[in-house]
Amino acid sequence: MRVLGIDPGLTRCGMGVVDGSVGRPLTLVDVNVLRTSAEVPVAHRLVTIEKGVDAWLDEFAPDAVAVERVFARSDVSTVMGTAQASGIAMVCAARRGLPIALHTPSEVKAAVSGNGRANKQQVGAMVTRILRLDAPPKPADAADALALAITHIWRGGAQARIDAAVAAARSRP
Amino acid sequence: MRVLGIDPGLTRCGMGVVDGSVGRPLTLVDVNVLRTSAEVPVAHRLVTIEKGVDAWLDEFAPDAVAVERVFARSDVSTVMGTAQASGIAMVCAARRGLPIALHTPSEVKAAVSGNGRANKQQVGAMVTRILRLDAPPKPADAADALALAITHIWRGGAQARIDAAVAAARSRP
Repeated sequence: MRVLGIDPGLTRCGMGVVDGSVGRPLTLVDVNVLRTSAEVPVAHRLVTIEKGVDAWLDEFAPDAVAVERVFARSDVSTVMGTAQASGIAMVCAARRGLPIALHTPSEVKAAVSGNGRANKQQVGAMVTRILRLDAPPKPADAADALALAITHIWRGGAQARIDAAVAAARSRP
Repeated sequence: MRVLGIDPGLTRCGMGVVDGSVGRPLTLVDVNVLRTSAEVPVAHRLVTIEKGVDAWLDEFAPDAVAVERVFARSDVSTVMGTAQASGIAMVCAARRGLPIALHTPSEVKAAVSGNGRANKQQVGAMVTRILRLDAPPKPADAADALALAITHIWRGGAQARIDAAVAAARSRP
């Protein structure tokens, strides 16, 4: 399966596409960080993000989209922009009928590094190893987007097996 | 001028259209509250809001859109949804090249009632009086959307006069 991971943000929106399935090596397809200027009105920054996400959905035709679940953090103004950017990303995917999953930062850290409190450097190092890259993707938003896509493939696989087991159990006479 | 006021929210998104100009009686064109169910995934709720806002922009062709500026409040989960809904509303307007203004709740309360700390009932009563309605619009989100549109017309007029004065001053030899 192919997954587009999105680490939403108004200033930097990370997007990473990964191909693969559970138990097999994963492959980096492409990664990018969409930037918008703080000097531009928020509405126009959001339109830029919408266009960027739509362009990647067109180009890479992912099977699913994984978006970081936004929580309140210390800087409230940042959270608002992040929430708005994540909303736009979700709408772009939902309009096309794509499955959308939200993963929390700690779920992503735990999935790629085994530690829900891993730091940026550790996440970057694990993404590099998992995707067999020469160097960690930069900036951190790029690595985070790839980590989201990796998490989705790994968790999605487990979820699919659970769903299949539940369906099988239900269909028993 | 015609203004669409939007009081954003995932569960209830108020939309109100007002015609008028500074110093003249304002007219209610239409008002509605878009509702989405908490049982539906957020991405699909946001698509419903997008469709609702787009439909009103098509139907009423406003000259400008006024959206409530979102602040952090006590309930963080509500703020996230509100921020996402406001982002979608802004994108719908920005895509069409419409001017978008953000007004804070206290700016709106001050504009319609003269008191930045007015309660819901006072805002509803003033909207009823200003638009010469028979009864306050319900629910409160409907009245708030109309109050936003009223605020925008009144503040926009003042801003336009300031801009004109600044331009005139600059053009003096």
